[in-house]
Amino acid sequence: MASAATTKTAPGTRDRLVSTASRLMQRGGYENTPVKQLVREAEATLGSLYHFFPGGKQELAVAAVHYGDEEFAELLRAGLASHAGPAQAVEAVAVLLADALADSDWRDGCPVTATALETVGRIPELQTACAQAFAHWQQMVAAKLLASGYPEAEARDLAATVINTLEGAETSAQVTQSRTPLLVAGRHLARLVASYASPDRA
Amino acid sequence: MASAATTKTAPGTRDRLVSTASRLMQRGGYENTPVKQLVREAEATLGSLYHFFPGGKQELAVAAVHYGDEEFAELLRAGLASHAGPAQAVEAVAVLLADALADSDWRDGCPVTATALETVGRIPELQTACAQAFAHWQQMVAAKLLASGYPEAEARDLAATVINTLEGAETSAQVTQSRTPLLVAGRHLARLVASYASPDRA
Repeated sequence: MASAATTKTAPGTRDRLVSTASRLMQRGGYENTPVKQLVREAEATLGSLYHFFPGGKQELAVAAVHYGDEEFAELLRAGLASHAGPAQAVEAVAVLLADALADSDWRDGCPVTATALETVGRIPELQTACAQAFAHWQQMVAAKLLASGYPEAEARDLAATVINTLEGAETSAQVTQSRTPLLVAGRHLARLVASYASPDRA
Repeated sequence: MASAATTKTAPGTRDRLVSTASRLMQRGGYENTPVKQLVREAEATLGSLYHFFPGGKQELAVAAVHYGDEEFAELLRAGLASHAGPAQAVEAVAVLLADALADSDWRDGCPVTATALETVGRIPELQTACAQAFAHWQQMVAAKLLASGYPEAEARDLAATVINTLEGAETSAQVTQSRTPLLVAGRHLARLVASYASPDRA
């Protein structure tokens, strides 16, 4: 399993293949990403792709999903750390996402969703990698809530809805080319999270 | 613009082309849907495709997005009408979605999301059709809230988050092959919607 952390210790062609695959899959999914284009944009060769990924495009795609997982986790980490209170922290994540999306001209949304949707029931290895990414992000939000004293089941459920709502709002923001869906989602999620906080852990 | 209502008055080949395109795009998006497969699965011919859709695959795809729009609207209409209170109604929609998704072996999620993501900044006509579908669904939820006495801005914002959360939770449900993300989202959305209701319109 190649995480972004692993790839940092082996820079060069492998890194470029993984990050290029992640970006192309983020925008168009797995099937829409032809190996030829991938190799060309990564300034690599077909030989180097099979050198680093004997399993070919699918093995590279799994590494790319892990890369996208870590990329989104970085933004999430920054947003969650920006406020002590989980409600404000979740809203800060939504704002960061809206800014990043606008900066990419609405193109670079969730690095995993497009691939996830097309691999359901088709490519188990990739589906699993996508599910792991969603679970990882949910665990990060849940950890913030647990640290603020939320009971475990409540934290887990809220974390799932936080990530799912941000995902859906991000798609909506992309299609309408507007930050509004994410900003509204952030406000609503903050309200929802705060509504579960008892006075001693608000 | 071909809506499902329009196609009902012209049954046969055109209908099959549109519903088949909708189903294939729901599962794999636009680019992943080869014209050859589409024509074969619709039991049609390439000639009939260009007869009904002189603009070819892209014109058919726009009709398919409108078809998917109306398909989801039917489920939404049923769920929203099932309870007088908007909070319970929204939760009922989430349950209907979870059931429909499980029935399709987790394959038939949002008919629009996969196509929406890959057409952002690439195919304006399709992107617009996807944006119209999201807007349509939001308007239906907003109408329910307005009828229950919610102020307009509050209703519009809540409706956006309701649809976006259901979209995100649906992707999560598909990838994890579990109804839970949608059921949890339904519970949270009901709580959020209820939290805005003043006593006289709860």
